Amino acid sequence: MDKKAKIDSMRHSLSHLMAYAVLEMFPKAKIGMGPAIENGFYYDFDLPVSLKPSDLPRIEKRMKALIKKDIAFKKKKVSKKEAAEIFKDQSYKKELIRDLEDKEVTIYQSGDFTDLCRGPHIKSSKEIDSDSFKLTRLAGAYWKGSEKNPMLTRIYGVAFAKKKELDNYLRMQEEAEKRDHRLLGSKLKLFLSDEEIGAGLHVWHPKGAILLKIIKDYLYEELSAHGYQWIVSPHIGKIDIWKTSGHWDFYRENLYSPMQVEDEQYLIKPMNCPFHIKVYKSEIRSYKDMPIKYAEFGTVYRYEKSGVLHGLTRVRGFTQDDAHIWCRADQLNEETAKLLRQALKIFRTFGFKECKLYLSTKPEKYVGTDKGWGKATNALEYVLKKDKLDYHVDKGGGAFYGPKIDIKVKDSIGREWQCTTIQIDFNLPERFDMTFVNQKGNKERPYMIHRALLGSLERFIGVLLENYAGNLPLWLAPEQMWAIPVGSVHKKYAKVIAEELKAAGFRCQLKDGGETVSKKIRQGEIQKIPYLLVVGDREMKAKTIRARKKGKDMGEFKLKKFIEKARKEVEKKK
Amino acid sequence: MDKKAKIDSMRHSLSHLMAYAVLEMFPKAKIGMGPAIENGFYYDFDLPVSLKPSDLPRIEKRMKALIKKDIAFKKKKVSKKEAAEIFKDQSYKKELIRDLEDKEVTIYQSGDFTDLCRGPHIKSSKEIDSDSFKLTRLAGAYWKGSEKNPMLTRIYGVAFAKKKELDNYLRMQEEAEKRDHRLLGSKLKLFLSDEEIGAGLHVWHPKGAILLKIIKDYLYEELSAHGYQWIVSPHIGKIDIWKTSGHWDFYRENLYSPMQVEDEQYLIKPMNCPFHIKVYKSEIRSYKDMPIKYAEFGTVYRYEKSGVLHGLTRVRGFTQDDAHIWCRADQLNEETAKLLRQALKIFRTFGFKECKLYLSTKPEKYVGTDKGWGKATNALEYVLKKDKLDYHVDKGGGAFYGPKIDIKVKDSIGREWQCTTIQIDFNLPERFDMTFVNQKGNKERPYMIHRALLGSLERFIGVLLENYAGNLPLWLAPEQMWAIPVGSVHKKYAKVIAEELKAAGFRCQLKDGGETVSKKIRQGEIQKIPYLLVVGDREMKAKTIRARKKGKDMGEFKLKKFIEKARKEVEKKK
Repeated sequence: MDKKAKIDSMRHSLSHLMAYAVLEMFPKAKIGMGPAIENGFYYDFDLPVSLKPSDLPRIEKRMKALIKKDIAFKKKKVSKKEAAEIFKDQSYKKELIRDLEDKEVTIYQSGDFTDLCRGPHIKSSKEIDSDSFKLTRLAGAYWKGSEKNPMLTRIYGVAFAKKKELDNYLRMQEEAEKRDHRLLGSKLKLFLSDEEIGAGLHVWHPKGAILLKIIKDYLYEELSAHGYQWIVSPHIGKIDIWKTSGHWDFYRENLYSPMQVEDEQYLIKPMNCPFHIKVYKSEIRSYKDMPIKYAEFGTVYRYEKSGVLHGLTRVRGFTQDDAHIWCRADQLNEETAKLLRQALKIFRTFGFKECKLYLSTKPEKYVGTDKGWGKATNALEYVLKKDKLDYHVDKGGGAFYGPKIDIKVKDSIGREWQCTTIQIDFNLPERFDMTFVNQKGNKERPYMIHRALLGSLERFIGVLLENYAGNLPLWLAPEQMWAIPVGSVHKKYAKVIAEELKAAGFRCQLKDGGETVSKKIRQGEIQKIPYLLVVGDREMKAKTIRARKKGKDMGEFKLKKFIEKARKEVEKKK
Repeated sequence: MDKKAKIDSMRHSLSHLMAYAVLEMFPKAKIGMGPAIENGFYYDFDLPVSLKPSDLPRIEKRMKALIKKDIAFKKKKVSKKEAAEIFKDQSYKKELIRDLEDKEVTIYQSGDFTDLCRGPHIKSSKEIDSDSFKLTRLAGAYWKGSEKNPMLTRIYGVAFAKKKELDNYLRMQEEAEKRDHRLLGSKLKLFLSDEEIGAGLHVWHPKGAILLKIIKDYLYEELSAHGYQWIVSPHIGKIDIWKTSGHWDFYRENLYSPMQVEDEQYLIKPMNCPFHIKVYKSEIRSYKDMPIKYAEFGTVYRYEKSGVLHGLTRVRGFTQDDAHIWCRADQLNEETAKLLRQALKIFRTFGFKECKLYLSTKPEKYVGTDKGWGKATNALEYVLKKDKLDYHVDKGGGAFYGPKIDIKVKDSIGREWQCTTIQIDFNLPERFDMTFVNQKGNKERPYMIHRALLGSLERFIGVLLENYAGNLPLWLAPEQMWAIPVGSVHKKYAKVIAEELKAAGFRCQLKDGGETVSKKIRQGEIQKIPYLLVVGDREMKAKTIRARKKGKDMGEFKLKKFIEKARKEVEKKK
């Protein structure tokens, strides 16, 4: 048995032991299903009482007692009839047995506990290190995942081969919780979620709107310098355009319902592509005009089930840093190379030094010619090979309309986040009959590339917050510094400091309110303001400031020196 | 009879004479209605043939012949029965007679033409100066304005007391046509209208997107410097929020139909207010925090009938330069004063020196207290009086929820365009239960001001284009200058020039394509590029450029001198 299968069967066995323990505690409990999952296991129960997180250690304790007993997991084949008899008090199991097509079913017996189960399991509970698992949380879960069925209580546990692995995992979880962008977003007053506005939608507070603007301004400069032109398109469009694009037929499950306007139907946009294509098509294009690159910060709306929504990283409305590139066949290699290099450069600027690249190639069903696919896939591989980039190939994993490269960034605690997609498209140029006039004077189909580098600005801000645990680098911090007077006699001097810093281009706030200095410093640290500049008698006399960064005193600076230092920090974007 | 009534009856009489002429030409024609309108008149006909614009002079000629005949307009009262007999061949008139409630009806007889008409009319056609009217255009118009009825042919005419007035009017029309922002938008490649995208929606071409960005960037700086904070809110929201705000009940006719999302309904936003209010309410606000000013470039969608849509000035989707201000009672005068002064300053910056101000006061039905209304109306009048501004009072013309000031800007050919609304609102703070903690520690309702200065960025760009006939001032021009080499030997030098200008912050394009210099200059003039910088042997040797502006040679400049000059022009924003 390989390592993965071994740990899975151990986790699965732990779920049985948990059910065993729960049934001992609540003999009237009905049991649902209890599989192994990533990092652990769960089991669903229909309980006569409502559990609290504080009940979990009690269950854990019982499980540990069971483990000590060296309980064997015995596999047995029985007829469906026998099984129904064995589980006569377990209605959910009986339902499962009824639905099984086989004549015989497999059960596992361990001590007084029997479960309907295909296995595999460990041989005996003694194989489990009873310090290497932990019950972590409770959740509600519908029987068989359907809202029509009763809501059961799911108990989650995590389990590893060794205690050290468990400890690592728990520490990592704790770290991730501290970095949870949903909490940071609210604590740092960046964005607002509100039940009355709707799930998966956010309003950006002033500080969040500044962060959004800093990112947009940076991308605007970066892309404009590389030949991108900007487009602004509406958020709704007649259904006709989505029929032409194919979204209406192939993407319906993510579309919001149409709005009736006079005798026409309109959709809120899930994508910006058709609008960019319309601009392309508003003129006759020549081979001399290529490549044509249109970019837009396009806010799109896509339906996601409410159950999967999560902060800024899984939403119903988001702003793509979207662009479309149309080029000639002889430009395809260079254009995809530029794209990928630019993406990696941008991630480095944002502080992500490690990226993972995934190339997805031609699936079984596809549009376009084999020659076109070959050319496109080669173009994507060209730069990967030329720049000696490490990448994974997902053979046959491309969309039906073209091959693609995905980029995931690795954050400071090792988690991967999907951001970039660079996607070649053989479908839309065909559907919208896009052409350019080639050197021979004939109409030719351009190659079309969709790409979003950060992917979604909302999601990317979520990733940034988690990566930096809210301690954004100076160039990204919505409030870069606070000027804090020690006493009321220093207010005037603090105001001069704040104004000079603002004039020097910094986002500096004067904090001359009534609170004490120490309270202001505490507030500034909670708000993760990069620099707190405290001025008292000494600083006022010496015309200096005292700078604090991440809770540490950085010493006294002449204002000019501090400005120089901060400017360098911003320019380095570190 | 006053002047207005006199000219109206003359215009009305001309519509009868037009119908007289048309019936002479097409005896089988059926006539609809023919009133006097602003600047002229029209008449609707059901014709056996389809008219072309080239037919209008023929009708005009017959009208002039009739005018010469000294035809009297005789009023007569007849019974409905008699009237039905007189109009026995005129089905539309018979329908009108049937619908009349009076027993007697009035008819007007002039020569062989009789019309069902209340009048008044002139006494005789000789009162008309036959050179002071002109038939201008044809249009389709449903009988009684309903799509269920037949489509009639409407002939429009314009008419004035004197030929000179007509000439003035026609010249003005011609001027307005040249300035039509819809044509300019397409000619200068600023924005795109497309049947498949939908009526009243626009996609901004790259050049238009730059113009939009210049305006946004300017307002962002201007407002940020005046204590505004920026918000970004979604384009959809749960119906609940629109029920709380009252839009669902009172503004339904302008709302798009709801989208069903799981078991909830969402609306595309017609306004940004509820989102800004939610941000206000996300914290407890103190009297020390006031005023709170939130701004947003919020793109909203409102239903307008397709018949009233017009270019960028009457649309279905537009971006408000929206802001909301909440303040204490003692701040209201100063806040409204700041607002109004800022609005006037901004219009001056955009080149509108003359504005008209309209104050609308308490209507019969209203929410809020008399005291509140008094205070609010005084606040609006405070600055009007203090700054000795000329303004019109629309007594009782305020919305039910508060008094307002509207600002119309006067363009370079004297037309007025509605832009700004500064609106005090007693309704939303109540509906959303907005409060702040006052100096005594009690909850108090803030005053709330809505305001959009430019109103709609789309509409304002339309107004700018019409005001400048497309010749945007240097700071607003998306492409400020073209560098044009005379021959291929000058390309390298032109490139250096273009790059230095770009480095100096100008939007400069290098035009080193294959066309001739004269063609490039012609193109640049059609595209209304402020400066065309031509470089040939002489300029290359002398390290200069030759600048052309609006078709005129401005002479030779050292590049440094030219940059200085252009910088000054941008800074003056003229």
